[in-house]
Amino acid sequence: MNFCSINDVDNPQGWVDEALALKKEIETYGPKVYTGKSICLLFFNPSLRTRLSMQKASFNLGIQSFIFNLNQEGWQLEFEDGTVMNGYTSEHIKEAAGVLSSYFDAIGVRSFASLSNKEEDYTEKVFNQFVKHCSIPVINMESATLHPLQSLADMITIKEFAQVKKPKVVLSWAPHPKALPQAVANSFLQWAGQMDYDFVVTHPEGYELAPEFMQGARLEYDQKKAFEGADFIYAKNWSSYEEYGQILSQDKKWMIDKVKMNLTNNAKFMHCLPVRRNVIVTDEVIDSENSIVMQQAAHRVTSANLVLRKLIG
Amino acid sequence: MNFCSINDVDNPQGWVDEALALKKEIETYGPKVYTGKSICLLFFNPSLRTRLSMQKASFNLGIQSFIFNLNQEGWQLEFEDGTVMNGYTSEHIKEAAGVLSSYFDAIGVRSFASLSNKEEDYTEKVFNQFVKHCSIPVINMESATLHPLQSLADMITIKEFAQVKKPKVVLSWAPHPKALPQAVANSFLQWAGQMDYDFVVTHPEGYELAPEFMQGARLEYDQKKAFEGADFIYAKNWSSYEEYGQILSQDKKWMIDKVKMNLTNNAKFMHCLPVRRNVIVTDEVIDSENSIVMQQAAHRVTSANLVLRKLIG
Amino acid sequence: MNFCSINDVDNPQGWVDEALALKKEIETYGPKVYTGKSICLLFFNPSLRTRLSMQKASFNLGIQSFIFNLNQEGWQLEFEDGTVMNGYTSEHIKEAAGVLSSYFDAIGVRSFASLSNKEEDYTEKVFNQFVKHCSIPVINMESATLHPLQSLADMITIKEFAQVKKPKVVLSWAPHPKALPQAVANSFLQWAGQMDYDFVVTHPEGYELAPEFMQGARLEYDQKKAFEGADFIYAKNWSSYEEYGQILSQDKKWMIDKVKMNLTNNAKFMHCLPVRRNVIVTDEVIDSENSIVMQQAAHRVTSANLVLRKLIG
Repeated sequence: MNFCSINDVDNPQGWVDEALALKKEIETYGPKVYTGKSICLLFFNPSLRTRLSMQKASFNLGIQSFIFNLNQEGWQLEFEDGTVMNGYTSEHIKEAAGVLSSYFDAIGVRSFASLSNKEEDYTEKVFNQFVKHCSIPVINMESATLHPLQSLADMITIKEFAQVKKPKVVLSWAPHPKALPQAVANSFLQWAGQMDYDFVVTHPEGYELAPEFMQGARLEYDQKKAFEGADFIYAKNWSSYEEYGQILSQDKKWMIDKVKMNLTNNAKFMHCLPVRRNVIVTDEVIDSENSIVMQQAAHRVTSANLVLRKLIG
Repeated sequence: MNFCSINDVDNPQGWVDEALALKKEIETYGPKVYTGKSICLLFFNPSLRTRLSMQKASFNLGIQSFIFNLNQEGWQLEFEDGTVMNGYTSEHIKEAAGVLSSYFDAIGVRSFASLSNKEEDYTEKVFNQFVKHCSIPVINMESATLHPLQSLADMITIKEFAQVKKPKVVLSWAPHPKALPQAVANSFLQWAGQMDYDFVVTHPEGYELAPEFMQGARLEYDQKKAFEGADFIYAKNWSSYEEYGQILSQDKKWMIDKVKMNLTNNAKFMHCLPVRRNVIVTDEVIDSENSIVMQQAAHRVTSANLVLRKLIG
Repeated sequence: MNFCSINDVDNPQGWVDEALALKKEIETYGPKVYTGKSICLLFFNPSLRTRLSMQKASFNLGIQSFIFNLNQEGWQLEFEDGTVMNGYTSEHIKEAAGVLSSYFDAIGVRSFASLSNKEEDYTEKVFNQFVKHCSIPVINMESATLHPLQSLADMITIKEFAQVKKPKVVLSWAPHPKALPQAVANSFLQWAGQMDYDFVVTHPEGYELAPEFMQGARLEYDQKKAFEGADFIYAKNWSSYEEYGQILSQDKKWMIDKVKMNLTNNAKFMHCLPVRRNVIVTDEVIDSENSIVMQQAAHRVTSANLVLRKLIG
């Protein structure tokens, strides 16, 4: 069993409940001492929360985690089949994945989108090669198009803070100076679409996400309208999917501020972090009582705990 | 409780004794198996002794340590409040510190002086932001102006090797090709000033340390005079505090050699390491029987043991 | 006791048997919980298998491993005695080795050949300075001229797959776009020469390995002739020893392909990895049933297990 996306999860709502129960169990009984299991956490990209929450969750479950920063510590990998490897790549994914499979009980892989090759990104060329060639469970620690550990944490956080049975949840695009992947947004769409939410997405024209992820979401181009009566505002930047990887707007009017939050039903503010203050969101909003970004980040351990227990616990 | 400086220590002399007792306890009973506690060791700068002694001490106490090389593995942090973060910083210290606080039981931070902005360095802008925004104990693994884990190890080493009740301890400036922070010297001043030493500092004119740290120390510009009758010579380079971060002298006459050591009372030679041989000190002196730099470095574990037990043991 | 080369091994054939027995023991009883021992794994160069197999083997034996990427995380080391250290090196190996010895129960060191200074490489200047100045066991994780953890794994693999008492083992040079060290080949020569093999080495003229390692091996310049009747083909590139560090040939005729493998006695194909596909070996061969590169890589843990038990278990 892998954890690549929500498609690996039989019952997403059940997982949210289980994760919260497991969190309480760990708080009560403390981390487990020892299982004899080990996991390799392989990074192609920077990470704070994913890296440290996976290490902490491993520790919680008595699983030994080993970090491997492939670009700095290992060999440049080749992902094409049949290549004559006389260039800058030294090792084929077939060998790397095979070897890791023989050493560990599971592997986590973090590999961002290139944002230059849409087809390679959206077929998850890199991540799927790990899945294909590993004989152990593979955990998505953010791939080109998805970040399910984040989304599960998001769902857990909404569950914990929701005050109505069917909350209105709004995913709002916000400006950013650099081109960012669509992974967090796509993955949020997948998961939120499976929950009992009134679920709205709002963004400027040209920022439409891939249609396959939009099932279950309502699109509203008017940000203010989208915010009306919302219980949760989830801010996130992404670059264009259509004009792939491009920044089409840095319009400051899309920044989340107090005036917009006042349109909501006293909504909680969420963001996956890291967040650029006063670009994505004003200090006033993120420092307000309604901001739950810290609790959301803390739930990265909660979601990692469950995924690890499901896969190798 | 934090460990930022000697100001966090109620009884510095008592800590020296406790650290030596704890060392014996660990030698006798071995490392502890398991406490369920974990610590994140966060590095902005290179480190050998601090990194590895903190990991070893964590291991000794049954605390799981996780390394985080922020510049290479994480996101560029923002330390200014109110900034519009549309530049090269991706994450604000508020979020980073908050998240780390929710994952771990303590954090260690290593962040050197810029040597370009005296005010920012001497207000400990970076380190104090961690202290301010973390809700868990913060350990100083060398900040802009202080290195208390080193100083505690220094005091432990002097205690172990002192043959008189009130030893004469001399902190001597020595030349170096690069501009170095004042942190080790400042911190040594703070701690040595609290011990029962005849405590002398010697350096060329222009290398005066910040007045607030000089309490309890006697200044002697004549290095030879300072060395007379000394029981311990502690060599260290630092750049100018007055002409901030500048190298005013590389005068080889200040190198510690055998002729100068002969002026002492058969003094022990100390240095915090890494040390540039035949620049700071001659091979003859550092390789002599009177050199206790190895024992001093070994006591980095001794001091880290105690600090960890005090804070999260 | 160190593990620098086969010269530290009293009974190489016995070690092969012991390693296989220990592997079974670990598979049966699982990793050990805890010994209180710790090891520092120090890397000057990239590594996947060595890094992760040493960490896994440490875990298997209940030894805590700590990674130290010296170039990225520590201080530039000085290896010359008597130097005036006013250049780019900050710490002498004497201090570094001494400090590591006081913190840990053993150390592993990975330091590749320069391929520019033959004398320094072949006197193992860097690695031997660690051996000289460490007071704890030192493990060779690939030095300038040797890679004994790899060779022991190779011998274990051959033992496991050999179907005759005295297999014909062929070490074949193969082309590569970059100049590589001779370490794996040298070390294989040392170990294979101690086994009960019909042992043949084949390479283009000009690629003769250092004579001191060639004892026990037969040299055959005709690759096809060498392959006849072989039970194991071990492919590896190395740069010239005579014209030190030079690439004299990239002749594709030396690539291992199916036609050549057909000359053998249904030989198993081996390589230490990472391997450049369709340069060293064709996809067809490495993906065939006769390829045992994965099992060979898996035995890196088997060999590391034994070395760790021998030295600090």
